[in-house]
Amino acid sequence: MLDALSYQSIGTGAVALIVARAFYVKVKKAPEGNEAMARIARYVREGAMAFLAREYKVLAVYAAVVFALLSATLGLLAGGAFITGAFLSLVAGFFGMKAATYANVRTAEAARAHGKPTALVTALDGGAVMGLCVAGLGLLGLGGIYALFRNDDHLATIVHSFAAGASSIALFARIGGGIYTKAADVGADIVGKVEANIPEDDPRNPGVIADNVGDNVGDIAGMGADIYESYVAAVVAAVALGLTLPIDTLSKLAPQVTDEKNLRAMAVSLPLLLATIGLGMSVVGIFITRMLKNLPPARVLRLALILPPFLVVAVAAIILPMGGFSAGAVITLAAGAAGGAIVGLVTDYYTSMGPIHKVAQSSLTGPGTNVIRGLAVGLESCAIPLVTLCAVGWISNAQLGLYGIALAAVGMLAGTAIVMTVDAYGPIADNGGGISEMAGLGKDVRAITDELDAVGNTTAAVGKGFAIGSAVLTVVALFAAFNMEVNAVRRAKGGADLVLFLTDAKVLMGILFGAMLPCLVGAMTMTAVGRAAGAIVEEIRRQFREIPGLLEGKAGVDPQPKVIVDIATSAAIREMIAPGAIAVLAPVIVGFIAGPEVLAGMLAGALAVGAVLSLLMANGGGAWDNAKKHIEKGGLDGHAKGSDAHKAAVVGDTVGDPFKDTSGPGISILIKVMGVVSLLIAPLIA
Amino acid sequence: MLDALSYQSIGTGAVALIVARAFYVKVKKAPEGNEAMARIARYVREGAMAFLAREYKVLAVYAAVVFALLSATLGLLAGGAFITGAFLSLVAGFFGMKAATYANVRTAEAARAHGKPTALVTALDGGAVMGLCVAGLGLLGLGGIYALFRNDDHLATIVHSFAAGASSIALFARIGGGIYTKAADVGADIVGKVEANIPEDDPRNPGVIADNVGDNVGDIAGMGADIYESYVAAVVAAVALGLTLPIDTLSKLAPQVTDEKNLRAMAVSLPLLLATIGLGMSVVGIFITRMLKNLPPARVLRLALILPPFLVVAVAAIILPMGGFSAGAVITLAAGAAGGAIVGLVTDYYTSMGPIHKVAQSSLTGPGTNVIRGLAVGLESCAIPLVTLCAVGWISNAQLGLYGIALAAVGMLAGTAIVMTVDAYGPIADNGGGISEMAGLGKDVRAITDELDAVGNTTAAVGKGFAIGSAVLTVVALFAAFNMEVNAVRRAKGGADLVLFLTDAKVLMGILFGAMLPCLVGAMTMTAVGRAAGAIVEEIRRQFREIPGLLEGKAGVDPQPKVIVDIATSAAIREMIAPGAIAVLAPVIVGFIAGPEVLAGMLAGALAVGAVLSLLMANGGGAWDNAKKHIEKGGLDGHAKGSDAHKAAVVGDTVGDPFKDTSGPGISILIKVMGVVSLLIAPLIA
Repeated sequence: MLDALSYQSIGTGAVALIVARAFYVKVKKAPEGNEAMARIARYVREGAMAFLAREYKVLAVYAAVVFALLSATLGLLAGGAFITGAFLSLVAGFFGMKAATYANVRTAEAARAHGKPTALVTALDGGAVMGLCVAGLGLLGLGGIYALFRNDDHLATIVHSFAAGASSIALFARIGGGIYTKAADVGADIVGKVEANIPEDDPRNPGVIADNVGDNVGDIAGMGADIYESYVAAVVAAVALGLTLPIDTLSKLAPQVTDEKNLRAMAVSLPLLLATIGLGMSVVGIFITRMLKNLPPARVLRLALILPPFLVVAVAAIILPMGGFSAGAVITLAAGAAGGAIVGLVTDYYTSMGPIHKVAQSSLTGPGTNVIRGLAVGLESCAIPLVTLCAVGWISNAQLGLYGIALAAVGMLAGTAIVMTVDAYGPIADNGGGISEMAGLGKDVRAITDELDAVGNTTAAVGKGFAIGSAVLTVVALFAAFNMEVNAVRRAKGGADLVLFLTDAKVLMGILFGAMLPCLVGAMTMTAVGRAAGAIVEEIRRQFREIPGLLEGKAGVDPQPKVIVDIATSAAIREMIAPGAIAVLAPVIVGFIAGPEVLAGMLAGALAVGAVLSLLMANGGGAWDNAKKHIEKGGLDGHAKGSDAHKAAVVGDTVGDPFKDTSGPGISILIKVMGVVSLLIAPLIA
Repeated sequence: MLDALSYQSIGTGAVALIVARAFYVKVKKAPEGNEAMARIARYVREGAMAFLAREYKVLAVYAAVVFALLSATLGLLAGGAFITGAFLSLVAGFFGMKAATYANVRTAEAARAHGKPTALVTALDGGAVMGLCVAGLGLLGLGGIYALFRNDDHLATIVHSFAAGASSIALFARIGGGIYTKAADVGADIVGKVEANIPEDDPRNPGVIADNVGDNVGDIAGMGADIYESYVAAVVAAVALGLTLPIDTLSKLAPQVTDEKNLRAMAVSLPLLLATIGLGMSVVGIFITRMLKNLPPARVLRLALILPPFLVVAVAAIILPMGGFSAGAVITLAAGAAGGAIVGLVTDYYTSMGPIHKVAQSSLTGPGTNVIRGLAVGLESCAIPLVTLCAVGWISNAQLGLYGIALAAVGMLAGTAIVMTVDAYGPIADNGGGISEMAGLGKDVRAITDELDAVGNTTAAVGKGFAIGSAVLTVVALFAAFNMEVNAVRRAKGGADLVLFLTDAKVLMGILFGAMLPCLVGAMTMTAVGRAAGAIVEEIRRQFREIPGLLEGKAGVDPQPKVIVDIATSAAIREMIAPGAIAVLAPVIVGFIAGPEVLAGMLAGALAVGAVLSLLMANGGGAWDNAKKHIEKGGLDGHAKGSDAHKAAVVGDTVGDPFKDTSGPGISILIKVMGVVSLLIAPLIA
């Protein structure tokens, strides 16, 4: 069975890549508008690609070092799998971002020439390249590993190394991209909007290009690496548990199968099968979404996010019983899909409905109360998602034990290709708006891109909700897999099992130690944004001061956006190293020095705090942003754009920016990376 | 030995109460200044006492219900112990706050008539009444229980019930007082400082009296109940472990003692002995502090906080070996004391040194960057305290097992009486400043009270650091005690032990569920402050609008402060119920419905998140407050009071207010209450 499946996965992955290529060609062929638009888009594209090139150089050094270490300790296959996992992540990021930087200007041009539906489709097509690359390459890589090594004794190590490669790249791409995008955004806004009093995306502002570059490197390349990693990690956690859990736990998966080897093969193949079905359904979903282009964008995109997981469940409900899987497998999958939908809808609620009106209201008494209310919304927004995840975990554990929890995460991520498509759509639309402003395409065009962008804000939050929800379940599973892996090694050596007692002082101290790691990474990334933004502010001020006629808008006088792009690039790459190093090194150091009990406690503590902080930051940030937009659209009678209430809301939005786009995602990926790294080093510290 | 010790404790407690009475009489005898001062002070005192009276009525109903439930399930002794624990907390709060409301006006008068040293001593004397009541009544109660029930089989249940009584009162007093103080503060500031542009504490502002009342009910009565609870809970956790831990773990305490009964008696008596020594040393410390009144206040108070734990260790190092205790006991105690000092000093650093300059600097680019930097400081400030607590836990566990962790918490809290004295000193000085402003005593007097108050800000943060640090260790111990208690009951019934595996899905789901509880309580208390402040804003606006001549300061026209006091009182009491109920009911509901595994996980998740959020909120809040004060004192060249940078800093301070004085303390007590309640219900859910 595994035999056929691995080739099916490779086939489906390849088809997805072919479809991605078709979208890529289609986007590139679309008209890119007038000369000014093309020039601005080229600046953005070149800036984004320059960042990627420099980031990839740093990551190449990192990957080479880890490759050497892994090859020396776990063997050459492990090293190779690590490099492959990392490389595929880079490839997905490269093509996805390239497509996005073509699609942005073409979205603006489509809005100008043909109106909203065509613009929506253009942005979605651009996003689909990233979405299909992420899922397609993920499936191709995993399927390839199965095809080559399914009967190899080292399958577990190879799979873990592949995941570790994906995780590390995601970590650095997310943190580096997050610092870039918010430093450029905040820096450009402080001098442009606040000090010089010129509108957002004004062509006189030298920071605007960097701001638009940031959307691409942070919200597209960074997010893509993050989702790719989630996808791979969820599958890998399930595979790891399938390989190591006691056989009686697994027997619930197919009670009639008594042969251990067959049962494990089924447990290992199921996540891949689901990912394959999920990718198929996502491709269907992408085409359905394009057909609905004349509906209101908000409805189209909400549907695109919520529907595919249920399609996957429906298909799985037919296929799985035929493959001999129990009803429990379908129930678990359904719980994961439903849980993902609930977390997504709750995120939607907190970032676009009642709570944002309360945040907007609280702006009437000043920025202090606005910030307090936004933080309260963020804190409150943790409750239902975490309770939902508990329920999903409870149900899936009741059905299939710990393996079920991993499977639920796979179910939640089944629609990865389309989730990523919709996620990438947002910054493309945002960029399109920026380009239309800079090229002076007029109010009507801007109104279209603004509407598309506003929806993108919410879909971004929903996408983060999926990512965090699946991350939490995945980490729980990774965590159990870590314990099983240690036991497997110890048993092979004739040693006693690792038993993790919650009341063991080592575990408890580990929990406290782990609890502070997300705080540290959060603090470091937030101050990094501040530092980088400060450097950008200085340079923009310098240009306004030293380039005669720039601020007055004299014809023929242009700013020097490349200088800002360079500053942002250098700063982001420099600042991503320390928090990234903490994430990778903490489990290694704690594991080797303090032992597996403390390491396990550390993962649990980091999971609890990390889940809370990343939900708080994502949702609080989304609520602040949309509360500001709500006021701008006239949601507070008598307090329009420019009023004191609006200024108060801008303060909240400024606080929310690094929350939702830098620190929050950084923390969410931190906990996954630590889980994957722990699993990888488990045989070494056992 | 337990015999003599229980009487010694009662004796020491009684002596402390006698000293407290002497300070009370001394404070009351001091001159209270002119008629205006006396009138204002009377308003504040009556408002504070009215709040206490209404709060106590609600708590009486709550206590009666719990008394009935406990008597029905765990017996009349448990019910009685609960009532006693609760009652002693109320008594300490009552006398402590009464003394504080006499001392505030007398501090102002002392500053006017005699200058800084006398004012310092007066405020300290007022605080000492609270400090000695808290520790004295705690010791009296615990000693009394030992004297009466030391040989009773129900000692464990009685002790747990006593702690539960103390915990519940602390919970409601802290949350209710916290909501009151910040609602009044924020409400008075929004209309007074922001809208009407009149100075802080201006007598025309009808909210000023309520603001000063708030300092007393929140920072004195609330804080007192909190510290009393910490003290009792730490001792009780050690006692619980002494009664239930496997005997071979305890044998490290006194290796030469082989008789189980004797060994347990030693384990049970040691925390009481340490508390007795601690109270004695604190009384010594209070007198030494008074003698140093001519030194700079900051130095005097820092010494008062850091020194006593080390005095206790020194005395213990002599006495414990004589009592047959091992060197491990002394090492553990020293680790706890040193850990407390480190946590305190780190708090001091983050709320008064380098970081506040960075927060002040970040105000130059607006309120957004100020808030971001403050949050980053808060997040960063979690790191060293949590690592320190890990180290303390590690050392004490290595010496004495889990019992050692509880003992370290007792060591950290040994100086409770003096910590509370210094803590209560702050709001007394703050109130003194308010009264001197309202009574028009002039700039020189205000300068003295301002200096005393500024030091109070830092000591408040340090006090919170001690409280959180000891809370974390206490919860770890309570948590282990819960497991032991369940096991003891199960064994008595011939059942199998409760084994808490970290990889058990129930435990993991419990961790996720527990992680969201501090968020929920944080969100509820923050929005409660917002709602209550809103109601106060409306009423102050109404008075300014409807009382002719009030805002213009016409002679003979007075505001109606009692209306505001009533609004704040009603709102605080109404709003404290829901978050308080969550804290008490969550462990009960989860324990009875989902079972002890989930409950244990829940405590661990709540501990991780609660520790982080309460440190973040306390230190971030302190940093914002002092960054604002730093700018007001001219710390940013060219950006004085009233500048844009200062306004930005005020925004941060507004955000920090509910952080540090409402939500943060509420969360820190939440985790303790849940631990104590879990321990109490352990026999029922075993």
